[in-house]
Amino acid sequence: MKILAIDTSNKPLSVAVMDNDQLLAQTTLTTHRKHAEFLMPVIEDLVKKSDLAPADLDRVVVADGPGSYTGIRMAVTAAKTIASTLGIELVTVSSLLNLALNVQKDNVLINPIFDGRNQNMFTGLYRWNDGEIETVISDQHINLEKWLHLIAEYDQQIVIIGDTDSFENDMRSALHSRLVVGQSLEGIPSAAKLGQYGLSQSPVSNVDAVVPRYLRLTKAEADWKKLHPNEDTHNYVEKV
Amino acid sequence: MKILAIDTSNKPLSVAVMDNDQLLAQTTLTTHRKHAEFLMPVIEDLVKKSDLAPADLDRVVVADGPGSYTGIRMAVTAAKTIASTLGIELVTVSSLLNLALNVQKDNVLINPIFDGRNQNMFTGLYRWNDGEIETVISDQHINLEKWLHLIAEYDQQIVIIGDTDSFENDMRSALHSRLVVGQSLEGIPSAAKLGQYGLSQSPVSNVDAVVPRYLRLTKAEADWKKLHPNEDTHNYVEKV
Repeated sequence: MKILAIDTSNKPLSVAVMDNDQLLAQTTLTTHRKHAEFLMPVIEDLVKKSDLAPADLDRVVVADGPGSYTGIRMAVTAAKTIASTLGIELVTVSSLLNLALNVQKDNVLINPIFDGRNQNMFTGLYRWNDGEIETVISDQHINLEKWLHLIAEYDQQIVIIGDTDSFENDMRSALHSRLVVGQSLEGIPSAAKLGQYGLSQSPVSNVDAVVPRYLRLTKAEADWKKLHPNEDTHNYVEKV
Repeated sequence: MKILAIDTSNKPLSVAVMDNDQLLAQTTLTTHRKHAEFLMPVIEDLVKKSDLAPADLDRVVVADGPGSYTGIRMAVTAAKTIASTLGIELVTVSSLLNLALNVQKDNVLINPIFDGRNQNMFTGLYRWNDGEIETVISDQHINLEKWLHLIAEYDQQIVIIGDTDSFENDMRSALHSRLVVGQSLEGIPSAAKLGQYGLSQSPVSNVDAVVPRYLRLTKAEADWKKLHPNEDTHNYVEKV
Protein backbone atom coordinates (compact mmCIF):
# COMPACT_ATOMS: atom_id res chain seq x y z
CA MET A 1 0.00 0.00 0.00
CA LYS A 2 1.37 3.41 -1.04
CA ILE A 3 0.70 6.04 1.60
CA LEU A 4 0.96 9.82 1.58
CA ALA A 5 1.29 11.24 5.11
CA ILE A 6 0.89 14.92 5.98
CA ASP A 7 1.39 16.86 9.23
CA THR A 8 1.24 20.66 9.18
CA SER A 9 -0.48 20.99 12.55
CA ASN A 10 1.93 23.61 13.82
CA LYS A 11 5.03 25.41 12.59
CA PRO A 12 6.72 22.29 11.19
CA LEU A 13 5.59 20.82 7.90
CA SER A 14 6.27 17.12 7.42
CA VAL A 15 5.29 15.07 4.38
CA ALA A 16 6.20 11.46 3.66
CA VAL A 17 5.53 8.86 1.01
CA MET A 18 5.57 5.29 2.32
CA ASP A 19 5.34 1.83 0.84
CA ASN A 20 3.54 0.09 3.71
CA ASP A 21 5.85 0.69 6.66
CA GLN A 22 8.88 1.48 4.50
CA LEU A 23 9.86 5.10 3.99
CA LEU A 24 10.22 6.13 0.35
CA ALA A 25 10.66 9.89 0.75
CA GLN A 26 10.18 12.48 3.46
CA THR A 27 10.67 16.21 3.83
CA THR A 28 10.36 18.16 7.06
CA LEU A 29 10.59 21.96 7.27
CA THR A 30 10.40 23.94 10.49
CA THR A 31 11.39 27.40 9.45
CA HIS A 32 8.17 29.21 8.77
CA ARG A 33 4.45 28.83 8.48
CA LYS A 34 4.38 29.11 4.72
CA HIS A 35 2.46 25.84 4.54
CA ALA A 36 0.19 27.30 1.87
CA GLU A 37 3.22 27.94 -0.32
CA PHE A 38 5.12 24.73 0.36
CA LEU A 39 2.64 21.94 1.03
CA MET A 40 1.51 21.03 -2.49
CA PRO A 41 4.93 21.46 -4.16
CA VAL A 42 6.55 19.31 -1.46
CA ILE A 43 3.90 16.60 -1.93
CA GLU A 44 4.36 16.65 -5.71
CA ASP A 45 8.14 16.56 -5.38
CA LEU A 46 8.17 13.61 -2.98
CA VAL A 47 5.64 11.56 -4.96
CA LYS A 48 7.78 12.13 -8.05
CA LYS A 49 11.05 11.31 -6.26
CA SER A 50 9.39 8.09 -5.05
CA ASP A 51 8.94 7.17 -8.72
CA LEU A 52 5.19 7.25 -8.24
CA ALA A 53 2.33 9.05 -9.93
CA PRO A 54 -0.50 10.43 -7.76
CA ALA A 55 -2.74 7.65 -9.09
CA ASP A 56 -0.44 5.08 -7.46
CA LEU A 57 -1.36 6.30 -3.98
CA ASP A 58 -3.73 4.10 -1.97
CA ARG A 59 -4.21 6.07 1.23
CA VAL A 60 -3.72 9.53 2.70
CA VAL A 61 -2.92 9.82 6.41
CA VAL A 62 -3.31 13.25 7.93
CA ALA A 63 -2.62 14.67 11.38
CA ASP A 64 -5.95 16.42 11.84
CA GLY A 65 -5.25 18.37 15.03
CA PRO A 66 -5.18 19.82 17.53
CA GLY A 67 -2.82 22.55 16.38
CA SER A 68 -2.88 25.91 14.68
CA TYR A 69 -6.19 26.68 12.97
CA THR A 70 -4.48 27.47 9.70
CA GLY A 71 -2.16 24.48 9.84
CA ILE A 72 -4.73 21.80 10.55
CA ARG A 73 -7.30 23.31 8.18
CA MET A 74 -4.71 23.26 5.41
CA ALA A 75 -3.58 19.69 6.06
CA VAL A 76 -7.13 18.37 6.36
CA THR A 77 -8.29 20.24 3.25
CA ALA A 78 -5.32 19.00 1.22
CA ALA A 79 -5.77 15.43 2.47
CA LYS A 80 -9.54 15.41 1.78
CA THR A 81 -9.04 16.91 -1.67
CA ILE A 82 -6.38 14.36 -2.60
CA ALA A 83 -8.41 11.45 -1.20
CA SER A 84 -11.59 12.59 -2.98
CA THR A 85 -9.90 13.38 -6.27
CA LEU A 86 -8.06 10.07 -6.43
CA GLY A 87 -10.87 8.07 -4.81
CA ILE A 88 -8.54 6.66 -2.14
CA GLU A 89 -8.72 6.07 1.60
CA LEU A 90 -8.28 8.75 4.24
CA VAL A 91 -7.04 8.11 7.77
CA THR A 92 -6.99 10.83 10.43
CA VAL A 93 -4.61 10.70 13.38
CA SER A 94 -4.28 13.01 16.37
CA SER A 95 -1.39 15.46 15.92
CA LEU A 96 -0.51 14.92 19.59
CA LEU A 97 -0.40 11.16 19.14
CA ASN A 98 1.87 11.64 16.11
CA LEU A 99 4.30 13.62 18.25
CA ALA A 100 4.14 10.97 20.99
CA LEU A 101 5.30 8.39 18.41
CA ASN A 102 8.71 10.13 18.47
CA VAL A 103 9.42 9.00 22.02
CA GLN A 104 10.33 5.34 21.71
CA LYS A 105 10.64 4.64 25.41
CA ASP A 106 8.88 2.06 27.52
CA ASN A 107 7.85 2.64 31.12
CA VAL A 108 7.37 6.39 30.77
CA LEU A 109 4.34 8.57 30.15
CA ILE A 110 4.60 10.68 27.01
CA ASN A 111 3.14 14.16 27.21
CA PRO A 112 3.10 16.03 23.89
CA ILE A 113 2.23 19.72 24.25
CA PHE A 114 1.12 22.45 21.86
CA ASP A 115 0.99 25.93 23.33
CA GLY A 116 -2.58 27.23 23.61
CA ARG A 117 -1.43 30.60 25.02
CA ASN A 118 -2.37 32.12 28.42
CA GLN A 119 -1.10 29.04 30.28
CA ASN A 120 -3.39 26.81 28.25
CA MET A 121 -2.16 23.79 26.34
CA PHE A 122 -3.37 21.26 23.84
CA THR A 123 -2.17 18.04 25.34
CA GLY A 124 -2.75 14.37 25.99
CA LEU A 125 -0.95 11.54 27.75
CA TYR A 126 0.34 8.46 25.96
CA ARG A 127 2.41 5.38 26.66
CA TRP A 128 3.77 2.35 24.84
CA ASN A 129 2.22 -0.96 25.77
CA ASP A 130 3.69 -4.04 24.16
CA GLY A 131 4.79 -2.15 21.05
CA GLU A 132 1.50 -0.28 20.61
CA ILE A 133 0.97 3.34 21.58
CA GLU A 134 -2.07 3.86 23.81
CA THR A 135 -3.90 6.87 25.15
CA VAL A 136 -3.74 7.37 28.92
CA ILE A 137 -5.53 10.74 29.00
CA SER A 138 -7.30 11.85 25.84
CA ASP A 139 -6.34 14.99 23.90
CA GLN A 140 -7.76 18.19 25.31
CA HIS A 141 -7.44 21.95 25.50
CA ILE A 142 -6.73 22.58 29.15
CA ASN A 143 -5.19 25.00 31.61
CA LEU A 144 -1.77 24.00 32.91
CA GLU A 145 -2.93 23.92 36.53
CA LYS A 146 -5.80 21.56 35.75
CA TRP A 147 -3.49 19.37 33.69
CA LEU A 148 -1.02 19.09 36.55
CA HIS A 149 -3.91 18.02 38.74
CA LEU A 150 -4.94 15.35 36.21
CA ILE A 151 -1.48 13.84 35.87
CA ALA A 152 -0.66 14.01 39.58
CA GLU A 153 -2.00 10.51 40.15
CA TYR A 154 0.61 8.83 37.94
CA ASP A 155 3.97 8.05 39.47
CA GLN A 156 5.98 7.27 36.32
CA GLN A 157 8.40 9.61 34.61
CA ILE A 158 6.66 12.06 32.29
CA VAL A 159 8.44 13.04 29.08
CA ILE A 160 7.26 16.39 27.73
CA ILE A 161 7.82 17.21 24.06
CA GLY A 162 6.70 19.94 21.69
CA ASP A 163 6.05 23.47 22.95
CA THR A 164 7.59 22.80 26.34
CA ASP A 165 9.26 26.18 26.96
CA SER A 166 6.24 27.94 28.46
CA PHE A 167 5.41 25.06 30.77
CA GLU A 168 8.68 23.45 31.78
CA ASN A 169 9.34 25.50 34.93
CA ASP A 170 5.87 25.10 36.40
CA MET A 171 5.79 21.42 35.51
CA ARG A 172 9.18 20.86 37.16
CA SER A 173 7.95 22.54 40.34
CA ALA A 174 5.06 20.10 40.42
CA LEU A 175 6.71 16.91 39.14
CA HIS A 176 10.34 17.39 40.28
CA SER A 177 12.61 14.61 39.07
CA ARG A 178 9.69 12.79 37.42
CA LEU A 179 9.77 15.42 34.66
CA VAL A 180 11.94 14.63 31.66
CA VAL A 181 12.24 17.18 28.87
CA GLY A 182 12.45 15.41 25.51
CA GLN A 183 15.04 16.20 22.87
CA SER A 184 14.35 18.93 20.35
CA LEU A 185 14.03 16.46 17.46
CA GLU A 186 11.36 14.54 19.39
CA GLY A 187 9.27 17.70 19.23
CA ILE A 188 9.24 17.74 15.42
CA PRO A 189 6.49 15.63 13.84
CA SER A 190 7.60 12.83 11.53
CA ALA A 191 5.26 12.15 8.64
CA ALA A 192 7.03 8.80 8.20
CA LYS A 193 5.91 7.71 11.67
CA LEU A 194 2.46 9.12 10.96
CA GLY A 195 2.26 7.04 7.78
CA GLN A 196 3.42 3.90 9.61
CA TYR A 197 0.85 4.41 12.34
CA GLY A 198 -1.89 5.20 9.83
CA LEU A 199 -1.22 1.94 7.99
CA SER A 200 -2.91 0.00 10.79
CA GLN A 201 -5.83 2.38 11.37
CA SER A 202 -9.29 2.24 9.81
CA PRO A 203 -10.03 4.76 7.07
CA VAL A 204 -12.88 7.20 7.62
CA SER A 205 -16.17 6.09 6.09
CA ASN A 206 -17.06 9.52 4.70
CA VAL A 207 -14.19 11.67 3.47
CA ASP A 208 -16.40 14.73 2.98
CA ALA A 209 -17.49 14.72 6.63
CA VAL A 210 -13.97 15.02 8.04
CA VAL A 211 -13.27 18.25 9.92
CA PRO A 212 -10.12 19.32 11.77
CA ARG A 213 -9.83 18.29 15.43
CA TYR A 214 -9.81 21.85 16.81
CA LEU A 215 -10.55 20.88 20.46
CA ARG A 216 -11.53 24.44 21.28
CA LEU A 217 -13.87 27.09 20.00
CA THR A 218 -12.52 29.97 17.98
CA LYS A 219 -12.67 33.29 19.80
CA ALA A 220 -15.57 34.30 17.54
CA GLU A 221 -17.43 31.11 18.43
CA ALA A 222 -16.71 31.59 22.14
CA ASP A 223 -17.99 35.20 22.00
CA TRP A 224 -21.11 34.06 20.18
CA LYS A 225 -21.68 31.33 22.74
CA LYS A 226 -21.56 33.86 25.58
CA LEU A 227 -24.37 35.76 23.86
CA HIS A 228 -26.36 32.60 23.09
CA PRO A 229 -25.75 30.37 26.10
CA ASN A 230 -28.60 27.99 25.36
CA GLU A 231 -27.86 27.36 21.71
CA ASP A 232 -25.64 24.75 20.17
CA THR A 233 -22.45 26.19 18.66
CA HIS A 234 -23.19 24.09 15.60
CA ASN A 235 -25.76 26.77 14.76
CA TYR A 236 -23.08 29.41 14.87
CA VAL A 237 -22.42 29.65 11.16
CA GLU A 238 -26.07 29.63 10.14
CA LYS A 239 -27.16 32.08 12.85
CA VAL A 240 -24.62 34.83 12.40
CA MET B 1 25.90 27.76 14.10
CA LYS B 2 24.26 26.80 10.78
CA ILE B 3 25.03 23.21 9.83
CA LEU B 4 24.56 21.25 6.62
CA ALA B 5 24.49 17.50 7.25
CA ILE B 6 24.76 14.86 4.51
CA ASP B 7 24.46 11.07 4.57
CA THR B 8 24.42 9.12 1.29
CA SER B 9 26.42 6.17 2.57
CA ASN B 10 24.01 3.61 1.22
CA LYS B 11 20.74 3.55 -0.66
CA PRO B 12 19.07 6.28 1.42
CA LEU B 13 19.97 9.91 0.89
CA SER B 14 19.44 12.20 3.87
CA VAL B 15 20.24 15.91 3.96
CA ALA B 16 19.46 18.36 6.76
CA VAL B 17 20.01 22.01 7.55
CA MET B 18 20.29 22.74 11.28
CA ASP B 19 20.56 25.82 13.45
CA ASN B 20 22.70 24.36 16.24
CA ASP B 21 20.64 21.39 17.46
CA GLN B 22 17.38 22.68 15.94
CA LEU B 23 16.18 21.19 12.69
CA LEU B 24 15.43 23.74 9.97
CA ALA B 25 14.85 21.42 7.02
CA GLN B 26 15.43 17.79 6.15
CA THR B 27 14.78 15.52 3.19
CA THR B 28 15.29 11.77 3.17
CA LEU B 29 14.89 9.61 0.06
CA THR B 30 15.25 5.84 -0.02
CA THR B 31 13.98 4.88 -3.40
CA HIS B 32 17.04 4.68 -5.60
CA ARG B 33 20.73 5.31 -5.75
CA LYS B 34 20.44 8.41 -7.91
CA HIS B 35 22.51 10.35 -5.40
CA ALA B 36 24.45 11.99 -8.23
CA GLU B 37 21.22 13.36 -9.62
CA PHE B 38 19.55 14.35 -6.35
CA LEU B 39 22.21 15.37 -3.85
CA MET B 40 23.07 18.90 -4.98
CA PRO B 41 19.49 19.92 -5.91
CA VAL B 42 18.24 18.64 -2.52
CA ILE B 43 20.97 20.58 -0.70
CA GLU B 44 20.16 23.77 -2.64
CA ASP B 45 16.44 23.34 -2.06
CA LEU B 46 16.79 22.81 1.71
CA VAL B 47 19.23 25.71 2.20
CA LYS B 48 16.79 27.94 0.34
CA LYS B 49 13.74 26.65 2.26
CA SER B 50 15.68 27.37 5.46
CA ASP B 51 15.83 31.01 4.34
CA LEU B 52 19.61 30.76 4.15
CA ALA B 53 22.20 31.40 1.50
CA PRO B 54 25.15 28.99 1.17
CA ALA B 55 27.40 31.68 2.66
CA ASP B 56 25.38 31.50 5.89
CA LEU B 57 26.55 27.94 6.56
CA ASP B 58 29.21 27.49 9.25
CA ARG B 59 29.88 23.76 9.16
CA VAL B 60 29.33 20.69 7.02
CA VAL B 61 28.86 17.34 8.74
CA VAL B 62 29.21 14.27 6.56
CA ALA B 63 28.76 10.56 7.18
CA ASP B 64 32.04 9.42 5.62
CA GLY B 65 31.52 5.67 5.64
CA PRO B 66 31.60 2.80 5.71
CA GLY B 67 29.01 2.23 3.01
CA SER B 68 28.74 1.92 -0.73
CA TYR B 69 31.85 3.15 -2.57
CA THR B 70 29.82 5.45 -4.76
CA GLY B 71 27.67 6.74 -1.93
CA ILE B 72 30.43 7.68 0.48
CA ARG B 73 32.68 9.07 -2.26
CA MET B 74 29.88 11.31 -3.41
CA ALA B 75 28.98 12.55 0.09
CA VAL B 76 32.61 13.15 1.04
CA THR B 77 33.39 14.89 -2.25
CA ALA B 78 30.31 17.11 -1.98
CA ALA B 79 31.06 17.93 1.67
CA LYS B 80 34.74 18.72 0.99
CA THR B 81 33.87 20.86 -2.01
CA ILE B 82 31.27 22.85 -0.08
CA ALA B 83 33.56 23.27 2.96
CA SER B 84 36.51 24.36 0.77
CA THR B 85 34.49 26.67 -1.43
CA LEU B 86 32.82 28.42 1.49
CA GLY B 87 35.86 28.21 3.75
CA ILE B 88 33.85 26.54 6.53
CA GLU B 89 34.40 23.67 8.95
CA LEU B 90 34.06 20.01 8.05
CA VAL B 91 33.19 17.27 10.54
CA THR B 92 33.22 13.59 9.58
CA VAL B 93 31.14 11.01 11.41
CA SER B 94 30.95 7.25 11.02
CA SER B 95 27.92 6.22 8.95
CA LEU B 96 27.40 3.32 11.38
CA LEU B 97 27.44 5.66 14.37
CA ASN B 98 24.89 7.86 12.60
CA LEU B 99 22.56 4.88 12.22
CA ALA B 100 23.12 3.95 15.88
CA LEU B 101 21.84 7.42 16.88
CA ASN B 102 18.38 6.29 15.71
CA VAL B 103 18.05 3.82 18.57
CA GLN B 104 17.31 5.95 21.62
CA LYS B 105 17.36 3.13 24.15
CA ASP B 106 19.44 2.77 27.26
CA ASN B 107 20.76 -0.55 28.53
CA VAL B 108 21.02 -2.18 25.11
CA LEU B 109 23.86 -2.62 22.66
CA ILE B 110 23.20 -1.06 19.28
CA ASN B 111 24.48 -2.97 16.28
CA PRO B 112 24.14 -1.10 12.97
CA ILE B 113 24.85 -3.28 9.93
CA PHE B 114 25.60 -2.60 6.28
CA ASP B 115 25.67 -5.66 4.04
CA GLY B 116 29.19 -6.38 2.75
CA ARG B 117 28.01 -9.41 0.73
CA ASN B 118 29.18 -13.04 1.09
CA GLN B 119 28.23 -13.10 4.80
CA ASN B 120 30.46 -10.08 5.44
CA MET B 121 29.22 -6.96 7.15
CA PHE B 122 30.31 -3.43 7.91
CA THR B 123 29.41 -3.12 11.52
CA GLY B 124 30.25 -1.73 14.93
CA LEU B 125 28.76 -1.86 18.41
CA TYR B 126 27.47 1.21 20.25
CA ARG B 127 25.63 2.11 23.42
CA TRP B 128 24.28 5.16 25.20
CA ASN B 129 26.07 6.17 28.35
CA ASP B 130 24.60 9.07 30.28
CA GLY B 131 23.14 10.68 27.17
CA GLU B 132 26.27 10.26 25.04
CA ILE B 133 26.73 7.57 22.41
CA GLU B 134 29.91 5.55 22.84
CA THR B 135 31.70 2.95 20.78
CA VAL B 136 31.86 -0.53 22.31
CA ILE B 137 33.47 -2.27 19.31
CA SER B 138 34.87 -0.06 16.59
CA ASP B 139 33.60 -0.09 13.00
CA GLN B 140 34.96 -2.87 10.87
CA HIS B 141 34.46 -5.02 7.80
CA ILE B 142 34.06 -8.49 9.20
CA ASN B 143 32.63 -11.92 8.54
CA LEU B 144 29.39 -12.68 10.38
CA GLU B 145 30.87 -15.67 12.21
CA LYS B 146 33.79 -13.63 13.57
CA TRP B 147 31.42 -10.84 14.57
CA LEU B 148 29.23 -13.27 16.50
CA HIS B 149 32.36 -14.45 18.29
CA LEU B 150 33.29 -10.85 19.17
CA ILE B 151 29.89 -9.94 20.58
CA ALA B 152 29.41 -13.24 22.43
CA GLU B 153 30.98 -11.85 25.58
CA TYR B 154 28.26 -9.22 26.12
CA ASP B 155 25.10 -10.27 27.86
CA GLN B 156 22.85 -7.29 27.11
CA GLN B 157 20.18 -7.17 24.44
CA ILE B 158 21.58 -6.38 21.00
CA VAL B 159 19.45 -4.25 18.67
CA ILE B 160 20.32 -4.78 15.02
CA ILE B 161 19.40 -2.10 12.47
CA GLY B 162 20.18 -1.43 8.83
CA ASP B 163 20.74 -4.32 6.41
CA THR B 164 19.54 -6.93 8.87
CA ASP B 165 17.77 -9.31 6.46
CA SER B 166 20.83 -11.34 5.45
CA PHE B 167 22.01 -11.79 9.02
CA GLU B 168 18.93 -11.99 11.21
CA ASN B 169 18.44 -15.76 11.14
CA ASP B 170 22.06 -16.62 11.92
CA MET B 171 22.24 -13.95 14.59
CA ARG B 172 19.07 -15.23 16.23
CA SER B 173 20.47 -18.76 16.32
CA ALA B 174 23.49 -17.40 18.18
CA LEU B 175 21.89 -14.74 20.38
CA HIS B 176 18.38 -16.16 20.90
CA SER B 177 16.15 -13.80 22.85
CA ARG B 178 18.99 -11.29 23.29
CA LEU B 179 18.52 -10.31 19.64
CA VAL B 180 16.12 -7.44 18.97
CA VAL B 181 15.44 -6.41 15.38
CA GLY B 182 15.03 -2.63 15.18
CA GLN B 183 12.17 -0.92 13.39
CA SER B 184 12.48 -0.18 9.70
CA LEU B 185 12.67 3.60 10.28
CA GLU B 186 15.59 3.08 12.67
CA GLY B 187 17.51 1.67 9.71
CA ILE B 188 17.18 4.91 7.72
CA PRO B 189 19.90 7.50 8.45
CA SER B 190 18.70 10.85 9.75
CA ALA B 191 20.81 13.80 8.64
CA ALA B 192 19.18 15.82 11.43
CA LYS B 193 20.67 13.49 14.04
CA LEU B 194 23.96 13.54 12.15
CA GLY B 195 24.00 17.33 12.29
CA GLN B 196 23.15 17.34 16.00
CA TYR B 197 25.94 14.89 16.74
CA GLY B 198 28.41 16.76 14.54
CA LEU B 199 27.73 19.98 16.42
CA SER B 200 29.77 18.69 19.38
CA GLN B 201 32.60 17.10 17.36
CA SER B 202 35.91 18.67 16.37
CA PRO B 203 36.27 19.75 12.75
CA VAL B 204 39.03 18.16 10.68
CA SER B 205 42.22 20.19 10.55
CA ASN B 206 42.79 19.65 6.84
CA VAL B 207 39.72 19.44 4.63
CA ASP B 208 41.71 18.40 1.57
CA ALA B 209 43.12 15.34 3.34
CA VAL B 210 39.74 13.80 4.14
CA VAL B 211 39.05 10.49 2.41
CA PRO B 212 36.03 8.21 2.73
CA ARG B 213 36.12 5.60 5.51
CA TYR B 214 36.02 2.58 3.19
CA LEU B 215 37.16 0.02 5.81
CA ARG B 216 38.00 -2.48 3.10
CA LEU B 217 40.00 -2.61 -0.08
CA THR B 218 38.26 -2.45 -3.42
CA LYS B 219 38.37 -5.71 -5.34
CA ALA B 220 40.92 -4.13 -7.69
CA GLU B 221 43.08 -3.11 -4.73
CA ALA B 222 42.79 -6.56 -3.18
CA ASP B 223 43.79 -8.20 -6.48
CA TRP B 224 46.75 -5.82 -6.79
CA LYS B 225 47.78 -6.55 -3.22
CA LYS B 226 47.86 -10.27 -3.94
CA LEU B 227 50.31 -9.58 -6.74
CA HIS B 228 52.37 -7.12 -4.64
CA PRO B 229 52.27 -8.61 -1.16
CA ASN B 230 55.13 -6.50 0.18
CA GLU B 231 53.97 -3.11 -1.03
CA ASP B 232 51.71 -0.62 0.67
CA THR B 233 48.28 -0.32 -0.96
CA HIS B 234 48.71 3.43 -0.80
CA ASN B 235 51.03 2.99 -3.79
CA TYR B 236 48.23 1.35 -5.70
CA VAL B 237 47.08 4.35 -7.70
CA GLU B 238 50.56 5.50 -8.62
CA LYS B 239 51.86 2.04 -9.47
CA VAL B 240 49.11 0.82 -11.76
